[in-house]
Amino acid sequence: MGRNLKATYLIETSYNPEDAAQIMAGEQSSGTFLRIPGETDELKARHAAKVTRVEPVGEVARPTLKGSRQMEGRPIQRALVELNWPYENVGSNLSNLCATVAGNLFELGPFSGLKLLDVDIPEEFTKQYKGPQFGIDGTRSLSSVFGRPIIGTIIKPSVGLSPVDTAANVKTFIEAGLDFIKDDELMGDSPHSPFEERVDKVMIEINRFADRTGKKPMFAFNISGDVDDMLRRHDYVLEQGGTCIMLSLNWVGIAGAVKVRKHAQLPIHGHRNGWGMFTRSEVLGMAFMAYQKIWRMAGVDHLHTNGIRNKFCESDESVIEAVKACLTPMHNGYQVMPVLSSGQWAGQAVDTYQAVGSTDLMYVCGGGIVAHPGGIAAGVKSIQQAWEAALQGKTLEAYAADHHELKQALSFYG
Amino acid sequence: MGRNLKATYLIETSYNPEDAAQIMAGEQSSGTFLRIPGETDELKARHAAKVTRVEPVGEVARPTLKGSRQMEGRPIQRALVELNWPYENVGSNLSNLCATVAGNLFELGPFSGLKLLDVDIPEEFTKQYKGPQFGIDGTRSLSSVFGRPIIGTIIKPSVGLSPVDTAANVKTFIEAGLDFIKDDELMGDSPHSPFEERVDKVMIEINRFADRTGKKPMFAFNISGDVDDMLRRHDYVLEQGGTCIMLSLNWVGIAGAVKVRKHAQLPIHGHRNGWGMFTRSEVLGMAFMAYQKIWRMAGVDHLHTNGIRNKFCESDESVIEAVKACLTPMHNGYQVMPVLSSGQWAGQAVDTYQAVGSTDLMYVCGGGIVAHPGGIAAGVKSIQQAWEAALQGKTLEAYAADHHELKQALSFYG
Repeated sequence: MGRNLKATYLIETSYNPEDAAQIMAGEQSSGTFLRIPGETDELKARHAAKVTRVEPVGEVARPTLKGSRQMEGRPIQRALVELNWPYENVGSNLSNLCATVAGNLFELGPFSGLKLLDVDIPEEFTKQYKGPQFGIDGTRSLSSVFGRPIIGTIIKPSVGLSPVDTAANVKTFIEAGLDFIKDDELMGDSPHSPFEERVDKVMIEINRFADRTGKKPMFAFNISGDVDDMLRRHDYVLEQGGTCIMLSLNWVGIAGAVKVRKHAQLPIHGHRNGWGMFTRSEVLGMAFMAYQKIWRMAGVDHLHTNGIRNKFCESDESVIEAVKACLTPMHNGYQVMPVLSSGQWAGQAVDTYQAVGSTDLMYVCGGGIVAHPGGIAAGVKSIQQAWEAALQGKTLEAYAADHHELKQALSFYG
Repeated sequence: MGRNLKATYLIETSYNPEDAAQIMAGEQSSGTFLRIPGETDELKARHAAKVTRVEPVGEVARPTLKGSRQMEGRPIQRALVELNWPYENVGSNLSNLCATVAGNLFELGPFSGLKLLDVDIPEEFTKQYKGPQFGIDGTRSLSSVFGRPIIGTIIKPSVGLSPVDTAANVKTFIEAGLDFIKDDELMGDSPHSPFEERVDKVMIEINRFADRTGKKPMFAFNISGDVDDMLRRHDYVLEQGGTCIMLSLNWVGIAGAVKVRKHAQLPIHGHRNGWGMFTRSEVLGMAFMAYQKIWRMAGVDHLHTNGIRNKFCESDESVIEAVKACLTPMHNGYQVMPVLSSGQWAGQAVDTYQAVGSTDLMYVCGGGIVAHPGGIAAGVKSIQQAWEAALQGKTLEAYAADHHELKQALSFYG
């Protein structure tokens, strides 16, 4: 990571890929659709984006996305393209960085596909954006969990529980030994569960438990909303002794999240709901590698990555890659804790650990805990046992031999 | 528009479309991947999202997006689905509204395609979100343009001009008669064109022109960035007599834009760069109909729609639909002015007017002005003449007979 801004794309085009890459570079720096008077050679030398790599990676029979301009008689090629911008074009501004690497590119005429795969954010940005305030280490300290994943759940049903019912669930969860609980992303500040009342009721249980045991489970309260409301809600959570706030990143947006980060004294749990829209097309949108860098720069402490064998369409390979991306240092730090959730239960623990090689993750199970035939406490135990097996290098089946709750889980969910 | 939240989707699935729609509704309200204890019938009756329409619209031979679960032997159907949520689930919170209608849906296993087409935002939201402060009428008043489109341009080259060079261009543009000028979305507050210095230099020219002529051309300064910086920059523009600020909506995000709106005393020019990512797949992401409603609710006064015969991949039909969507009242108001740009020159004026039937739009030309063979002043004249032709019900060719600049434009760009 140097002073320049660099981005990598997968493109699909019937143009010569070199020419197509030059069009991208022109459009995203000095150009327009016609050569214009002020675009001097000197200005271009200083500010034009440079194409630093074009590597064809295959052909397709038909254009994947509609509407592109097709060059008669030419193959439709896919290629990796790397563009490079001088830092001076952008300045240390995340919105402008995104407008540059992910702006008016996706619709350009020559492309029947264009996906941002990766971005190298200039080191200069670290002066403006300090990144995650707590990261992995701070989250472990706050929740008193070391040497194993932070095991958590989501309040379900997502919508409809009163603050009192939510708190009753929380009591059950934390007495069962859970480290972490989160609001569902659908639950914010709604008439049937006003934010402050939910915090009050939930924190009574958590504080009571912490006083008794010395361990304070972490609850991520979804403060997503308008800026002033988010700051006020953050303060409210802090005052009641809470230790985490949650944001729906794609809907709060970068500026809102950065503002919360600057104000916050609590870790930010970054929920990526809506993410499928950005990434499910293999030739459109943004890959997680780029996405997680932008959000780490914005200062998010935890980031959802999905888990293996999830209920979504994402492959295990892609999930593992996402978790590893989060665990790779950026600018010598910018720690973010990957959050594995969606269809998770005891069954994925060993394979996850083997694939990822780290316990620096949050392992969040909804139905994987609450639907356990032995009840919630047994559900929690089954997950804990599964991770014990993983850390001891045992198979789930072997470990289940003398761990009843894990055994029940394997036969019920397996 | 009543009290409920409603959203329409295009889905693609090998499941029975009815079943698939029920999965969407469950996932986005009370459910998880398994039936769980707290999901009582009473809670479901109050909070479950309802499927209010399922209309098959065709079949495809292969799943469009990868990774979905396929039902053996069943056709892959596309269908329109309408879901309906009680207002009580969400509360008046745009982030939560988006998490509900556009959250963890796009990745759900049964779907090889899922696109949000439209959303009906509950009237209750109008108490919290006042919408565009200036809209069409306020923008016309500020820029003194009535009875015809506001004609504008973008500073080009997008990147690289110093504040002094930018101001020199502005001087040329406004003396040539342009109503509106905007920063390129790539230009924010960069080392080679610091924001305040650019405002200073540009506003000297604009104020001088306004003092002399009584008409103040509108310049949309791109204030996109972190919240405090945006508010400070807004104030700076206002202090210098500027009349418009611009946001890169997708990167500033909803919370940031709403915060700017609450603070602002100037219209917000909403730039949608990156939009292609959301919409270019026919079966993924979000349609403009939904997008423009969300941003009008957030309070954006102008919104980019693309123009016909643009340099992007969007069809003319889609562009016209987008312009009309902006011009359709929402909650009895929430006026937003559509901004037609990209590859625009004199040539599209008559067809645009015939298709849209309104002059309530901004017509923004880059190369269509500055690359005109007669120079910038002639470029501006050619656009004005083209719109005169449109309003007089004449063809461009007929009007060009005694309008030299238009004639030049037709032979150069045509």
